[in-house]
This record gives sequence, structure tokens and C-alpha cells, in this order.
Amino acid sequence: MSPDDLKALVRSIPDFPKPGILFRDVTTLMSDGPGFAAAVAMLAQRVEAAGAQAIAGIEARGFIFGAAVAAHCGVGFIPVRKPGKLPVPVLAIDYALEYGTDTLEVDPGAIADGARIVLMDDLIATGGTAMAALELIRQAGGIVEEALFLVDLPELGGASRLREAGVAVEALLDFPGH
Amino acid sequence: MSPDDLKALVRSIPDFPKPGILFRDVTTLMSDGPGFAAAVAMLAQRVEAAGAQAIAGIEARGFIFGAAVAAHCGVGFIPVRKPGKLPVPVLAIDYALEYGTDTLEVDPGAIADGARIVLMDDLIATGGTAMAALELIRQAGGIVEEALFLVDLPELGGASRLREAGVAVEALLDFPGH
Repeated sequence: MSPDDLKALVRSIPDFPKPGILFRDVTTLMSDGPGFAAAVAMLAQRVEAAGAQAIAGIEARGFIFGAAVAAHCGVGFIPVRKPGKLPVPVLAIDYALEYGTDTLEVDPGAIADGARIVLMDDLIATGGTAMAALELIRQAGGIVEEALFLVDLPELGGASRLREAGVAVEALLDFPGH
Repeated sequence: MSPDDLKALVRSIPDFPKPGILFRDVTTLMSDGPGFAAAVAMLAQRVEAAGAQAIAGIEARGFIFGAAVAAHCGVGFIPVRKPGKLPVPVLAIDYALEYGTDTLEVDPGAIADGARIVLMDDLIATGGTAMAALELIRQAGGIVEEALFLVDLPELGGASRLREAGVAVEALLDFPGH
């Protein structure tokens, strides 16, 4: 299955979550068994090339791709969670959204000092959430070797922001002209 | 790796989320690469034995185990989500919590009529969320062949409730005497 075949499995939904946004919906790729397995195998090749010891996935769609790739590679999976979900004292970071702020949390005990980590999410757009997750993992002592996504919307600039912060960025599929 | 080895990777945290509850924390199993891969492989055997065509995973920890097992088996993954997350018209179900109510949503287009589905979550306790997810998948036209969990807390009765609703229930690990 080629990247173009996978791209054809991503559904495009106009005006979600608000008017003017063309939402790239990856749930249609996940629910296609051969497509999902092929995407996971291709993402796993990048993780193996990066020599990662663990994958950190961002709640919630990043759990779906990140955990599947972690199990495929035999490396640990570290959930980067929304506030109040982890049962232990956490390291937390607040970050700005278009309106208001949000928070991500991680269990610092899940990240060995100097561990080589690949950060994963389903999609990179403006990159606010991914930048916060990167900072959080660095604060916890992890080294983010790469940020890895199923989909990049390059014109929204998130991948560029991550590269400027010193992280390699890869995505299986990109949708230019977003 | 044996089930007892996996059990030793589950962390027990007293008084979370409130006093008197002994929380079984599976994040320590996930972050152990060999342990997570072994758990996923064992869960995948159950899915293959059930002849499932897709796995439905409950947000959010059910995404982690469900998606990893789906990719391992080459079957589709259907997210059963919290309200407002899916970008399409959804089928929704409200259900009672100890205090108040909650809602689960699914994209009915992701479930083919008569599709054989395994419902997955990380842990079954009293079973309120799993019972709601079961009803939701049935309303969408799916046939739930089995409900599959990493951890069962049998004395809280959730597995029994699911069996009474006509579903086979399996768990890799159980913690009796919860």
C-alpha cells in the first residue's frame, strides 16, 4: 500500500470544528484494517531508523498511532495526557490555544534520564500542542529524537516550528494548500 | 513473558481517584517495551480466536491497547469517543456514573452492518462504561463477539454484567480481592 493509497483513506470534512476549516479526518484510515496496519508499519520504520527507546503519544489520537507503533517496535509507550488523568504526581505544562489555554501532563517517572524518544501525534497543524509536548518531555529529561506524524499540513507551520526547536520532523502524508 | 510478569508491571496506587480506591495503573506496563509488546501479542491471540473484523476501543486508555492490537491483527480500529470529538454526525449514548452521567459517541459509518467486533478497554471494574459502549455498538449494527481487557477487577462485577448481556468476556490479568 502506497502513501497515496493511505491518503485516499483520509476523509476531508469542511467546516469542522468551525466554519472555514477543512478537517482531515484520520478515523477512516484507522477503521480500514489493511490501511491502518500499513500506516503503522511505515511509521515504525521511522522510529527504528531514529533508534528510539520509547514513543510519547499525545492524547487522544496520538495514543492510537503512537501505541500501535510502540508495540510494533517493542519499545515503551508514554502517554502525554490531558490534566487530571494520571494517578501520580505529574510534570505539567500550560500552553496557549487560539482562545484560552490548555495543559498537558506526563509522569516524569516514565521517562528515563537521557532516554531517546519519538514524539507522535496523528496530525501536525500549527504545532502548539506538539511544541508543548516537546518542552514537557525535555523538562522530564528525555531527548526527543524526532517528531512523527501521520499527516502534516505544512502551510500551517507546525513542522517548521518543531524544526526550529531542534527536532527532526517526519510525516507519512502531507496535504499542502490546506 | 508470563501473565504474572505482566501483573508485576501494573502499579497499584492507593486512594486514587479518591480515598479508599486502590487504583491499578497500567501506564507502567505500557512504558515497559517488552511488557507492552507481550501484552499486545497475547490480547491479539484472543482477537484472532474470536474472528473479529474490527476492534472498538474506549477513550482514552482503550485507544492505547485497542489500536495496538488492531494493527497487530490487521483489523480496523473504531474509536468510541467522549462527546464532541468526532467530526461527523454520531450515534450517542448517555450512561450513569456514580455521580452524574457521561456520554459516549461513535461514527455509525465506521461499523458495517453485522460486523464482528471485539470491544476493548484497559480495565473492567463496575462495567458502566463498557455496558454503554456495548449498547452503542449494537445500535450501530455491530455484533460484539467479545469484550477484552488487560485487567479485570472481578469483585466489582463488570465482567458479570457484560456476560449477562450476552457477551463473552476475557481479561489477561485479574486482581481479585480488589
